[in-house]
Amino acid sequence: MANYEPVDSLESPRFSGVRTFMRLPHVETTEGIDFAIIGVPFDTGATYRIGARFGPEAIRSISALLRPHNAALDVSIFDYCSGVDFGDLPVVPGYIEDSFKRIEQSLFPLVDRGVIPILLGGDHSVTLPELRAVAKKHGPLALVQFDSHTDTWDEYFGRLYNHGTTFRRGVEEGLILVDRSIQVGMRGSLYSKEDLDAAKSLGFEVITSIDGQEMGIDNLIRSIRQRVGEAKVFVSFDIDFVDPAFAPGTGTIEVGGFTSAEALRLVRGLGGLNFTGFDVVELLPPYDRSQITASLAANIAYEFISLIALRKKKIAGAQ
Amino acid sequence: MANYEPVDSLESPRFSGVRTFMRLPHVETTEGIDFAIIGVPFDTGATYRIGARFGPEAIRSISALLRPHNAALDVSIFDYCSGVDFGDLPVVPGYIEDSFKRIEQSLFPLVDRGVIPILLGGDHSVTLPELRAVAKKHGPLALVQFDSHTDTWDEYFGRLYNHGTTFRRGVEEGLILVDRSIQVGMRGSLYSKEDLDAAKSLGFEVITSIDGQEMGIDNLIRSIRQRVGEAKVFVSFDIDFVDPAFAPGTGTIEVGGFTSAEALRLVRGLGGLNFTGFDVVELLPPYDRSQITASLAANIAYEFISLIALRKKKIAGAQ
Amino acid sequence: MANYEPVDSLESPRFSGVRTFMRLPHVETTEGIDFAIIGVPFDTGATYRIGARFGPEAIRSISALLRPHNAALDVSIFDYCSGVDFGDLPVVPGYIEDSFKRIEQSLFPLVDRGVIPILLGGDHSVTLPELRAVAKKHGPLALVQFDSHTDTWDEYFGRLYNHGTTFRRGVEEGLILVDRSIQVGMRGSLYSKEDLDAAKSLGFEVITSIDGQEMGIDNLIRSIRQRVGEAKVFVSFDIDFVDPAFAPGTGTIEVGGFTSAEALRLVRGLGGLNFTGFDVVELLPPYDRSQITASLAANIAYEFISLIALRKKKIAGAQ
Amino acid sequence: MANYEPVDSLESPRFSGVRTFMRLPHVETTEGIDFAIIGVPFDTGATYRIGARFGPEAIRSISALLRPHNAALDVSIFDYCSGVDFGDLPVVPGYIEDSFKRIEQSLFPLVDRGVIPILLGGDHSVTLPELRAVAKKHGPLALVQFDSHTDTWDEYFGRLYNHGTTFRRGVEEGLILVDRSIQVGMRGSLYSKEDLDAAKSLGFEVITSIDGQEMGIDNLIRSIRQRVGEAKVFVSFDIDFVDPAFAPGTGTIEVGGFTSAEALRLVRGLGGLNFTGFDVVELLPPYDRSQITASLAANIAYEFISLIALRKKKIAGAQ
Amino acid sequence: MANYEPVDSLESPRFSGVRTFMRLPHVETTEGIDFAIIGVPFDTGATYRIGARFGPEAIRSISALLRPHNAALDVSIFDYCSGVDFGDLPVVPGYIEDSFKRIEQSLFPLVDRGVIPILLGGDHSVTLPELRAVAKKHGPLALVQFDSHTDTWDEYFGRLYNHGTTFRRGVEEGLILVDRSIQVGMRGSLYSKEDLDAAKSLGFEVITSIDGQEMGIDNLIRSIRQRVGEAKVFVSFDIDFVDPAFAPGTGTIEVGGFTSAEALRLVRGLGGLNFTGFDVVELLPPYDRSQITASLAANIAYEFISLIALRKKKIAGAQ
Amino acid sequence: MANYEPVDSLESPRFSGVRTFMRLPHVETTEGIDFAIIGVPFDTGATYRIGARFGPEAIRSISALLRPHNAALDVSIFDYCSGVDFGDLPVVPGYIEDSFKRIEQSLFPLVDRGVIPILLGGDHSVTLPELRAVAKKHGPLALVQFDSHTDTWDEYFGRLYNHGTTFRRGVEEGLILVDRSIQVGMRGSLYSKEDLDAAKSLGFEVITSIDGQEMGIDNLIRSIRQRVGEAKVFVSFDIDFVDPAFAPGTGTIEVGGFTSAEALRLVRGLGGLNFTGFDVVELLPPYDRSQITASLAANIAYEFISLIALRKKKIAGAQ
Repeated sequence: MANYEPVDSLESPRFSGVRTFMRLPHVETTEGIDFAIIGVPFDTGATYRIGARFGPEAIRSISALLRPHNAALDVSIFDYCSGVDFGDLPVVPGYIEDSFKRIEQSLFPLVDRGVIPILLGGDHSVTLPELRAVAKKHGPLALVQFDSHTDTWDEYFGRLYNHGTTFRRGVEEGLILVDRSIQVGMRGSLYSKEDLDAAKSLGFEVITSIDGQEMGIDNLIRSIRQRVGEAKVFVSFDIDFVDPAFAPGTGTIEVGGFTSAEALRLVRGLGGLNFTGFDVVELLPPYDRSQITASLAANIAYEFISLIALRKKKIAGAQ
Repeated sequence: MANYEPVDSLESPRFSGVRTFMRLPHVETTEGIDFAIIGVPFDTGATYRIGARFGPEAIRSISALLRPHNAALDVSIFDYCSGVDFGDLPVVPGYIEDSFKRIEQSLFPLVDRGVIPILLGGDHSVTLPELRAVAKKHGPLALVQFDSHTDTWDEYFGRLYNHGTTFRRGVEEGLILVDRSIQVGMRGSLYSKEDLDAAKSLGFEVITSIDGQEMGIDNLIRSIRQRVGEAKVFVSFDIDFVDPAFAPGTGTIEVGGFTSAEALRLVRGLGGLNFTGFDVVELLPPYDRSQITASLAANIAYEFISLIALRKKKIAGAQ
Repeated sequence: MANYEPVDSLESPRFSGVRTFMRLPHVETTEGIDFAIIGVPFDTGATYRIGARFGPEAIRSISALLRPHNAALDVSIFDYCSGVDFGDLPVVPGYIEDSFKRIEQSLFPLVDRGVIPILLGGDHSVTLPELRAVAKKHGPLALVQFDSHTDTWDEYFGRLYNHGTTFRRGVEEGLILVDRSIQVGMRGSLYSKEDLDAAKSLGFEVITSIDGQEMGIDNLIRSIRQRVGEAKVFVSFDIDFVDPAFAPGTGTIEVGGFTSAEALRLVRGLGGLNFTGFDVVELLPPYDRSQITASLAANIAYEFISLIALRKKKIAGAQ
Repeated sequence: MANYEPVDSLESPRFSGVRTFMRLPHVETTEGIDFAIIGVPFDTGATYRIGARFGPEAIRSISALLRPHNAALDVSIFDYCSGVDFGDLPVVPGYIEDSFKRIEQSLFPLVDRGVIPILLGGDHSVTLPELRAVAKKHGPLALVQFDSHTDTWDEYFGRLYNHGTTFRRGVEEGLILVDRSIQVGMRGSLYSKEDLDAAKSLGFEVITSIDGQEMGIDNLIRSIRQRVGEAKVFVSFDIDFVDPAFAPGTGTIEVGGFTSAEALRLVRGLGGLNFTGFDVVELLPPYDRSQITASLAANIAYEFISLIALRKKKIAGAQ
Repeated sequence: MANYEPVDSLESPRFSGVRTFMRLPHVETTEGIDFAIIGVPFDTGATYRIGARFGPEAIRSISALLRPHNAALDVSIFDYCSGVDFGDLPVVPGYIEDSFKRIEQSLFPLVDRGVIPILLGGDHSVTLPELRAVAKKHGPLALVQFDSHTDTWDEYFGRLYNHGTTFRRGVEEGLILVDRSIQVGMRGSLYSKEDLDAAKSLGFEVITSIDGQEMGIDNLIRSIRQRVGEAKVFVSFDIDFVDPAFAPGTGTIEVGGFTSAEALRLVRGLGGLNFTGFDVVELLPPYDRSQITASLAANIAYEFISLIALRKKKIAGAQ
Repeated sequence: MANYEPVDSLESPRFSGVRTFMRLPHVETTEGIDFAIIGVPFDTGATYRIGARFGPEAIRSISALLRPHNAALDVSIFDYCSGVDFGDLPVVPGYIEDSFKRIEQSLFPLVDRGVIPILLGGDHSVTLPELRAVAKKHGPLALVQFDSHTDTWDEYFGRLYNHGTTFRRGVEEGLILVDRSIQVGMRGSLYSKEDLDAAKSLGFEVITSIDGQEMGIDNLIRSIRQRVGEAKVFVSFDIDFVDPAFAPGTGTIEVGGFTSAEALRLVRGLGGLNFTGFDVVELLPPYDRSQITASLAANIAYEFISLIALRKKKIAGAQ
């Protein structure tokens, strides 16, 4: 039985009230919850279009449309789990390393008490401190990364930390179990032939958009599940994985991506993995239109919650 | 031979003149016409984003791009039928039941004289008084509903009438021949497991987006045709049936929907059914972008007209 | 000393956290507070452009920029008073009279315990139930209305309640002390010569935009203060009082209005009146641009709070 | 008594029906009318931002908000005159001289029968064929031009006709009574010192924005009235006369202009002149925001109608 | 080895500097280059929405995101070729035939010296003078046209030149080798049954969107390659080929088109053809959203460059 | 005689060509020029809305409308001076102190050779390294700052450098001659009463918007000139000095500001001061609308150039 669940939208209009994710209570607790929705309003790591600091606000706004029963996965979320909107983690705009420390330190207590965090970015640099906090508890993690870029640059303008170097740093810091990790959706032009190879040299399995579209969603799911296996896993979803027609509100748009229907199917296909954390990043509200990118991001986060509930349902069913 | 047909756009630029649907003459007549385009600028039934009162204006505006020959269906519309832009039905903003009465009463005379109405919403609540007017003439109707929601709530905030209860009311009032009716495109999160079941309990056949996408368009068409058979049918197209990338300008967006190409194929696949009326609803111009949702709505209405012409062409050909 | 005051924005970025007005705590209390910010997300009373149901959300969003010291009035708000973001009042979209009842009933307890409400609309119809709640406590109220329209129609499309009839109803219901009430800012075309006269016949003093601009702000302030005197007063600010260049995000725009600098000066000029309640209404986010209208609305609400603090400061100073 | 007047908006919502200017009947008549609203959807003469071909549509759309009584001028328009929305004049997009001929030829019959045309542009090049039609009936005309540019270039890119050469051509063709003509509002950078002098050399009185703002509106009105005297006059209002904060939707924006309140006062100040025609031009809907520029243009046209009514009222009053 | 190549974006942020295509040097040279990017900011030929004059600027802006290695085609462009941003060709806004002459005359010297032009429109009328310049050097050309319209009208409003007549004129002027030419993507309503037949009568192979979608991309590529064979070919890509969800920023939107992923695959499939020139046209920035259409256009141009490099790579590899 | 001057826009349309400021040649030279336009695309110092990295691009884009004769100041710029668009200074997004060093170091050589820089921000943090470069050459500088905020915080979130601390750092580093410096336009709410006092304690003269509006522009000019006297001066114009109706495209909007006409008059009033450098900052294109803020910023930069020319004209005239 859930301790915390959303306001009933058949009784109170969904456009009313202070906005929290999915109309969940906004409580800074680690007690009685399975998951926490947590904003990370940080975008200092962005190298082109910028504005992801307003991402959590925009996702919360449109998430009022989400309802508690996931028909696609056949699970009524709050029959099996409880969660809150924890608010946002502290950051210092303009200062990357300082912010990374605050993100890691404020996230760790939740993770430490067994809460599964679902983080709303922010640019993709925030995944590094998130991984630091989660790996501190769980050890090196399998990574499932949906993204149009590998984000494995060595440096950019001579600096080590920004949204294009996250996963190289993650490997170097021993946070990622590379042989259980997979990057899906890469596309667009590259600086050189070595770019994709670089991610592979680090040990990642890399499936480009072109290859993924040819394989089909079912095979993609199979590949991801096979790669991850029983490892503890962190799922990172960069909204630019999806084609800009479906997700215009992001920083470095790459045409030719997946559809939102395909993205949802992919995420739903991860049921049963051993999740330790999730994020959805790179939503830039100033470039979004009619909230369609925010809605997609909110739905991705919703599927993440559903995966947590589904796992608890299966465990419950197995008993 | 058509009594009424559009202005010739090879002679007068399409961006000129007072805007009527497809540049048809704006005449409030029921004589000499097979169909009438009719606006229903009503949105008091909306429960989230609002603004469909400007839907008819926006559809008329972009409909100037429509031309009289439907190549996909191979029919030159005005070789077989005649029609007008009848203007808008009277409504009282802020008063649902009062508006329903006016809509029904002002629509009935057209239906009564054999004109097939093609209604431009307006939110989806307007389909109820439309069905009342059409069923008063033709008796209970088969319903083909393209939509991401079933709109079969019992009530909302304790009230019986709004855009989420339309089809339960329609069944209760005996306007719908449920065993000949089908709802296609449902998706998104639900309040509870019972939601889809509720529509089925009312007697509707329900095909979700996920199932429909798996079946493919040809099978979907077959299912619809089989369900409807020879019954008199009303087709209701909620623009949120289509994915928000193609139709951002609507009220309760649900990611993961059909494409516009698929939607057009579906509608064209209905050729030969026994049509009594059509509507296309839930276009919200303030949330549209570059008129793409309005253009899709206008094209859906255009396919509706084409279906009328096609049926007359076949009858003419059969004679 | 304040019990409740905003989060410190020098410590936590203003773009972070769940959005409440001015980063005040969101608590549904009537204890220990002088004022409460309350949303009224209702727009069923709108007769042209619509969308004010998202007004409270938009005002809360940009209000993060507000800081506790009002330099123009030389008052540090939370040195003298305490307040919360109370959330939104319950409404039923699509049902005016039902919503009016809920607004009145849920507002009354606050007023009854001496809290001064600052209400964020919603369309201008919501002022009627607000006045009902406040007058029930305080008796008939002086009204200071900033607006481009008098909103004193008798009816509209045959109905008594919508955003154009509010103040006639208010007079008829005995909620308004007309000989202490004033309407400022009227402009734009009218249905007939009788329109302005009608407001005057009801007993209001009416100052048009043209007359007000000629008089100058200082004289306008004098006129308002003189009219109101010592009476208990409710201030209602329709954002369309201001020119659409400064406030594009509203429903029935009227060109030729006041500037935002003038509007702020006017509101600040009301210091010392005997306030019982305030609202700022008719912000339509879908028509706003870069949050400028929302920012103006938030600043108007901020001046309202400042007026409350100023009065307490003067009382404190006098002791 | 008016033969033609607007639909009653207290009975039918202003957002309903096929859009005509001010909800006037759309009739192509020259009988029983004093004025005609006429669109000129032509923008091939534009030298920078473009899109005025959609100007008439946008003005018609927002003009639904206009009501028949002009309080500022104290005249109920349809007590004194009658008018229609005549639709749009024929043009050939991409062909300036061809379009000029069609505009002139189709406009002349109206002018010839004594109808005063109020033309909705279109870019400022359309004023040349308008002047040709009106001057053919009335002889050379005094011109009152509100504009941020003199539009008296000799040529542009080696060509004689575009929106920057209109009034030099008008003088050369003998359509303009230069010593009774005045240009008001010029500002912004120039190609050379000779630019303003050029307009003066042609014989125009030229008052810059800076000078006009210093003189004040009352003195400006006096200057215009004095200049025009009893001459037959054509009033041409380029919307870029107004500052881009009030009129962003135009082609060659010039910061530092007049406000909309000032613009309305100026136009209203022309009461009693001997009008033969009016236009309002250079509204570019793709660059407008929340219809504020369109609303201003519609109000300018509305004041033009009011001036016609006012003159008839005075004549009626004098009898 | 390239003489000219882009600025290194790992050293200097992509949002910095004067915008040229892909950050290539802006040099008006014909020496040492294989290709030149050339803007044609002309839109006087547009018959509905307009604004393509700003197309080259918008494409240059977003093209900063393009990087030199094309992973899909496995070619590092500047290992094999050199190119510049040549700037824009001279045009005279408002004058079609005059502009056509200037375009042809200024383009010819580049073509004459063996440079392959990649032209950024502008509306689709500009392809006619481009073909004149290229055919003057190479003789009649095979045409591969991606477009939702055939653009083979005989005339429009009685005039021979605009964006709807380009390819009929091209055939008439002997610029096009029709029996090696193919038009792909036609869809939308037509004026009459004769419209598509007309293009076929001129000798073009025409594949509609519906047929193309059924065939699949691989078969489409085969059909195009088979049609063109070894002929010298010009590729013209009208951005409205793609569905408006992916390309809202264009003039005459037609719903139901290809996706951007499909478009890219199609263009990449042309590898090895004997290219003489390319264009991408009909991008209208005022109607674009978050640069998604501009990004697609930039990527199409990028694939064109890649095709040039690929051909040189193969030749190099063959040696 | 100018060595460098703009392209002639009477010969080549202003919407054509690679965008440079005012169509000046883009040359990285320090020879033969009096001034250089220089972009500083840096926004890591922003504490609320962000995106000024695209400021220089947006200003360049609309600056095509600027012409060489300043009528208000009666000076033909290139009769007296020469200048170029120097491009952008190097920055490292995400790293403030690193960027400050690069800005200072790359700017110094220009200043050192006597070129007057006109810098286009960027957020207001960039003024600090600009002052460092200019003061290194000229010694401590008088500062004329137009702004709605003093930007004299001690720190923000515990850090010394961002756009809110610029001028306190400038004073501390001895770059500013405080007793010759003045800040104009402060308004909006403050953190505490000490905020304005803090700027005054540092030695600045501070004139708030309210005081400035009361004084009038002429008196404001007098105050500024009197304060600065003969000192070498740097002028920094934060676009939020102007009301958001005129400048929506900025980061921390404050309602109630000056108009664009007033801003231009103020800047023009500085003629004859001893200028060493200028900047215009805080333009955020993602929040701009129809380029009105960019146009204002471009015009401010244009007036800066004009002031340089005017000074040279006067010197020339005096000889």
